[in-house]
Amino acid sequence: MIKTIAFIGAGNLATHLALALKHAGYRILQVYSRTQSSADILAKRVDADACHSFAEVRRDADLYIFALSDKALLPALKTLQLKDKFMVHTAGSLPVSIFEAYATDYGVFYPLQTFSKARELDFSKIPLCIEASRTELESELMLMGDKISQSVQLLSSKQRKQLHLAAVFTCNFTNHMYHIGQTLLQEEDIPFDLLKPLIMETAQKVQIMPAKAAQTGPAVRFDEDVIKAHEESLKMHPDFQKLYRFASESIYHLHSEGYD
Amino acid sequence: MIKTIAFIGAGNLATHLALALKHAGYRILQVYSRTQSSADILAKRVDADACHSFAEVRRDADLYIFALSDKALLPALKTLQLKDKFMVHTAGSLPVSIFEAYATDYGVFYPLQTFSKARELDFSKIPLCIEASRTELESELMLMGDKISQSVQLLSSKQRKQLHLAAVFTCNFTNHMYHIGQTLLQEEDIPFDLLKPLIMETAQKVQIMPAKAAQTGPAVRFDEDVIKAHEESLKMHPDFQKLYRFASESIYHLHSEGYD
Repeated sequence: MIKTIAFIGAGNLATHLALALKHAGYRILQVYSRTQSSADILAKRVDADACHSFAEVRRDADLYIFALSDKALLPALKTLQLKDKFMVHTAGSLPVSIFEAYATDYGVFYPLQTFSKARELDFSKIPLCIEASRTELESELMLMGDKISQSVQLLSSKQRKQLHLAAVFTCNFTNHMYHIGQTLLQEEDIPFDLLKPLIMETAQKVQIMPAKAAQTGPAVRFDEDVIKAHEESLKMHPDFQKLYRFASESIYHLHSEGYD
Repeated sequence: MIKTIAFIGAGNLATHLALALKHAGYRILQVYSRTQSSADILAKRVDADACHSFAEVRRDADLYIFALSDKALLPALKTLQLKDKFMVHTAGSLPVSIFEAYATDYGVFYPLQTFSKARELDFSKIPLCIEASRTELESELMLMGDKISQSVQLLSSKQRKQLHLAAVFTCNFTNHMYHIGQTLLQEEDIPFDLLKPLIMETAQKVQIMPAKAAQTGPAVRFDEDVIKAHEESLKMHPDFQKLYRFASESIYHLHSEGYD
């Protein structure tokens, strides 16, 4: 049974996750971050000790949650040498097997959401993707997941990698489309508020109907006059122009090839 | 004062707009569509006459609302010959001057939203963009707009064109990102429900913070390992791979060049 937890990492994801676990009754023993102020801030919020060197990391937690950048995980595992401890990472694109050389009991606890420090989140709505080296550990992680989220799923490393890739399109690239929209509006002194209802409706439609059925606009109609005029308008923004062309072509292909 | 309205066109936009105007107390005299069944269905919903030939279009409406595809507008104006009538179009990318040879009193009444037939919409939340050939007509259209929407704006044709372009990015291309996400998940038997909270949170964040500040993920961190692995995963989808690469580059540029 997991009762005590140490966090390795104190970024946005670690912060939201640690707060949710604390709230669900878990004891956060310690927060490590290589930046002392980050460790201090999060540790204070969850009544934990803070540390900023690997040598100070305690050895008595039931679970170690690594919430580091993908690149930082392996060096941390090498240095920490917690081989007999139960440890999980929180990354979408790293396989569970990354722990093989450094642990016997290990797993993945991946919350699928976009985390920004300034933003409060209802963790119960965040899907959690679980994987572990043994069935018993999967059950333990599922139990912990059920205490903080309504949506807990077992996913293989291969599935999680694909989900993470899909999340890059639906979150990061979508947000980039918003960013391009903001940039274009600023050039003509148009308030971004005009686009906000459209952004919400576009997101809401896909909650209840397939994206294919929801599509509208010049590309799906293959309205060449509008597409050409838009490309012409974008001549000062070669990046946006390229994206415009390829997104329009890709929309047209996906609709003419009969993808669902 | 506008009291009676004829609709030229009976598509998704015409349907939502006619229902909102009817509900606000306007009398819809007639609905024209070249497809008889479309004209009949909408006419019935708004207590209007239906017609499907231009010769039958009545001459006594206070306002003619053209809700046609961009390509169909000019031929319709040529055939109808309503020169002494007040007429508006509802298109984002057509200038108001398109009416010049065919009318004296004319304007634009552009509701910025993505319209699907199956989807109920609260019209009061939809921004309306107004432009007209004379100030008095702008006031009349603003008055009509205020009765159905909380957000009515005067925008020039140049501004509206830019807004429409921005809407293609934030709505059509965003929906395409959702479509790509769905396609990728289907390949690994992952339920699309897992992405829905992420999609909502991404849209909600940009309601209250700049898109630049909201960005997360491998591209903004320029995490080359993840980006390369994702491109490799997309090798069976050359369209998606191209979009992945250009969107990632564009995110990186926009963030390193200091765009707001």
